[in-house]
Amino acid sequence: MTSPGINALKAALPAKAWTQDADMIAPHLVEWREKYFGTTPILLMPSSTADVATAVKICADHGLSIVPQGGNTGLVGGQTPQGEVLLSLKRMTKIREVNPVADAITVEAGATLQTVQDAATAANRKFPLTLSSEGSCTVGGVLSTNAGGNHVLKYGTTKDLVFGVEAVLADGQIFNGLTSLHKNNTGYDLSRLFLGAEGTLGIITAATLKLFAQPGHVTRVMMAVASVTDAVALLTQLRGPALAMFEVMPRIGFAAVTDNFETDRDPFTAVHPWYVLADFEVDNAEAGEALVMPLLEKAMASGLVRDAVLAQSDTQFRALGAIREHMSAGQKFLGGSIKQDITVPIDRIADFFTRANATVQRIVPGCRPVGFGHFGDGNIHYNIAQPASANLAANRDAFLAHWDDISEAIFDIVDSLGGSISAEHGIGIMKRETLAKRADPVKMALLRRVKAAMDPDGIMNPRVMV
Amino acid sequence: MTSPGINALKAALPAKAWTQDADMIAPHLVEWREKYFGTTPILLMPSSTADVATAVKICADHGLSIVPQGGNTGLVGGQTPQGEVLLSLKRMTKIREVNPVADAITVEAGATLQTVQDAATAANRKFPLTLSSEGSCTVGGVLSTNAGGNHVLKYGTTKDLVFGVEAVLADGQIFNGLTSLHKNNTGYDLSRLFLGAEGTLGIITAATLKLFAQPGHVTRVMMAVASVTDAVALLTQLRGPALAMFEVMPRIGFAAVTDNFETDRDPFTAVHPWYVLADFEVDNAEAGEALVMPLLEKAMASGLVRDAVLAQSDTQFRALGAIREHMSAGQKFLGGSIKQDITVPIDRIADFFTRANATVQRIVPGCRPVGFGHFGDGNIHYNIAQPASANLAANRDAFLAHWDDISEAIFDIVDSLGGSISAEHGIGIMKRETLAKRADPVKMALLRRVKAAMDPDGIMNPRVMV
Repeated sequence: MTSPGINALKAALPAKAWTQDADMIAPHLVEWREKYFGTTPILLMPSSTADVATAVKICADHGLSIVPQGGNTGLVGGQTPQGEVLLSLKRMTKIREVNPVADAITVEAGATLQTVQDAATAANRKFPLTLSSEGSCTVGGVLSTNAGGNHVLKYGTTKDLVFGVEAVLADGQIFNGLTSLHKNNTGYDLSRLFLGAEGTLGIITAATLKLFAQPGHVTRVMMAVASVTDAVALLTQLRGPALAMFEVMPRIGFAAVTDNFETDRDPFTAVHPWYVLADFEVDNAEAGEALVMPLLEKAMASGLVRDAVLAQSDTQFRALGAIREHMSAGQKFLGGSIKQDITVPIDRIADFFTRANATVQRIVPGCRPVGFGHFGDGNIHYNIAQPASANLAANRDAFLAHWDDISEAIFDIVDSLGGSISAEHGIGIMKRETLAKRADPVKMALLRRVKAAMDPDGIMNPRVMV
Repeated sequence: MTSPGINALKAALPAKAWTQDADMIAPHLVEWREKYFGTTPILLMPSSTADVATAVKICADHGLSIVPQGGNTGLVGGQTPQGEVLLSLKRMTKIREVNPVADAITVEAGATLQTVQDAATAANRKFPLTLSSEGSCTVGGVLSTNAGGNHVLKYGTTKDLVFGVEAVLADGQIFNGLTSLHKNNTGYDLSRLFLGAEGTLGIITAATLKLFAQPGHVTRVMMAVASVTDAVALLTQLRGPALAMFEVMPRIGFAAVTDNFETDRDPFTAVHPWYVLADFEVDNAEAGEALVMPLLEKAMASGLVRDAVLAQSDTQFRALGAIREHMSAGQKFLGGSIKQDITVPIDRIADFFTRANATVQRIVPGCRPVGFGHFGDGNIHYNIAQPASANLAANRDAFLAHWDDISEAIFDIVDSLGGSISAEHGIGIMKRETLAKRADPVKMALLRRVKAAMDPDGIMNPRVMV
């Protein structure tokens, strides 16, 4: 566990900025689902960009590879070292500047998303990215994975919320792309290269993010519809500047939540095939009703919406949202689940369901697709639950053994529809081979050329993505 | 004028796809201001991506450099060849697909911006980029220069309006990044690299662009304010989801228009130091008044707004807009003008004016700054008119001789405020040396590394940007 490079790191960095204590390192080597397990000779915890630069320079000089880590909430194994130096940004948590006039906030990479949201709110502004892991995921992580979430249809993905980044390059130099400029035409968009790069081009140490006006009120409505086709048709009718969220759930997933969680009640009296949860950001409750009620009346008159509930209180607002939040948890009551995070063009969502449902039935007759999620941006969490049986546990492993063949069959459909095999979770280790196999060879060659240009010795998160 | 490479191009391309006729080539070698003049051995006019690829491959094989050209409306000399092969996209004008459900339009690079706007409107959607040259500038050009315009504060710059591009690489391969996916986390954002790259990394042949809801109504208001500081304070009060334009004009520029153009009348009875023109995109006229009137009343009560006119008819709407549109034309009545296209962070706009006005007065006492433009995104067209005199023409050249020293002084201020020396016009030939001198060396080295990775032989628009 010692080498000249490791010794040089220990000598150059402050005592608090590194550890080889196995107990301290342990939580960084496994992620919460316990799917990926890692090893590392040393955990670095620099507290400044200068220290990150020092560490990377030493690693580069000694041929040591580095895996950067934020809140360790990634879902594709990208943050777990296999013998590389592990560099955690967790001590770089400063909010460097909140600038409500320029509508910008500059934060260090280790700050949690929640911290950024709170700092924006304190300045009466809004940072719109919201994820279920927001209390623990970090700015560096969400930028490096281009995290998505529920508000993409209004505010874009993480990439679209960034003015610029500060990053330590593979040779230890510091690239300073921090800016609050809305217009700047002086060369290629270098900051953008680091967004979604999963730490393979350098280590993001800070970023200037975009802030927005706080909406005065959010009007939330849950609607029951007959089919995926109707859900997409409804989307095109509701879409406009105010629509900030459009989430869809099938009956099976919805019922798994409302049947099993005591606090989650079905707000409708009848059973419906599909449910849509939509948020509209408006000035106040009256404006929200004035906007939404005519839309709802039209959709109900045409038969597109079978029933609807408009949240009339904070309690009801949260109750409707909780059903959507509990979709993943609810699936556990359906047994084992093969999970996909895919996107298709919005006008192909219905095609996708028709083909995917038929395909998975052919592979495992009786399996139960639970495709839900962010239809407003085309992102479907197409999870497939094992067939119903009296003893789910007994049949679980046999079903999960189909993970790869079901995934490949789904990816074939996604590819043929012009979709993406990774909507918001990234490539990491999990989908690296799949990407290499399925991506356009011209694209793959370009990815590798950019990687080689930015990290010629291949020391930045070397087993990930490209 | 013949070489093996040129002969190979002539042999491989359809007869309509090239010319060496001097009269046909001539209009492509000079831009409308007659500032840059070029030469070329051959003008290529391919009508398909395959033909562009063929042409680039031949050029690469023979070591010929290429300058791509769109509508020839660029302002920094980036589209004018100096002996390179000139490749015009003007015959690639197809609208390949309008997809209102996915909110996407796929168009070829030679389509004009106006064509795209019209195709979007025909599908009851909106493509929000608007520029004064929209009738002649092309998609490939606006993407390659990341053109800005008046609606950046709501919709972002051109970069933000692109899902992905198709481009021919420097070796003649075709990169297909066309997609309407809102979420796609499968590698670096390669399409983004071509945006604002001014043709130095490859030739954009098509793009999928984002569409938006058509606003039901645009409420336009012109407001008189006392100072730049007040204009910025007003911006922060008006800013919100509906604010789509916030343009500012000083009295001297405003009066140059209203005093000299018969159709442009000053809508106010009193003289004011500064004017703000703001657009709000709303559902209908009533909603616009309901939104804007309370904001105006508050701003007038606090003294921030001295007077205001809300457009009550289409005629008045156009009349208020025309004053802003005529700002450049109006400046001709003030004599010679030294022009700057810069950005500063929005909270530094007032600082910029204080320092820049003092600086230019020191260099040329009596000169008359006319700083106007897109304060909503920090972009100032800081033009300086020559000192007033009975015979402007006689003193014009002596004043314009200060172009470089005034520019350098302005750039010093811009740099010290964290601004940009090119907001929306790009680098081209005009600012290449300035960029190389002023940019962070780490950034310049990265730009060159990316250029070398994508175009190792340096044949793509070789005298431009990097």
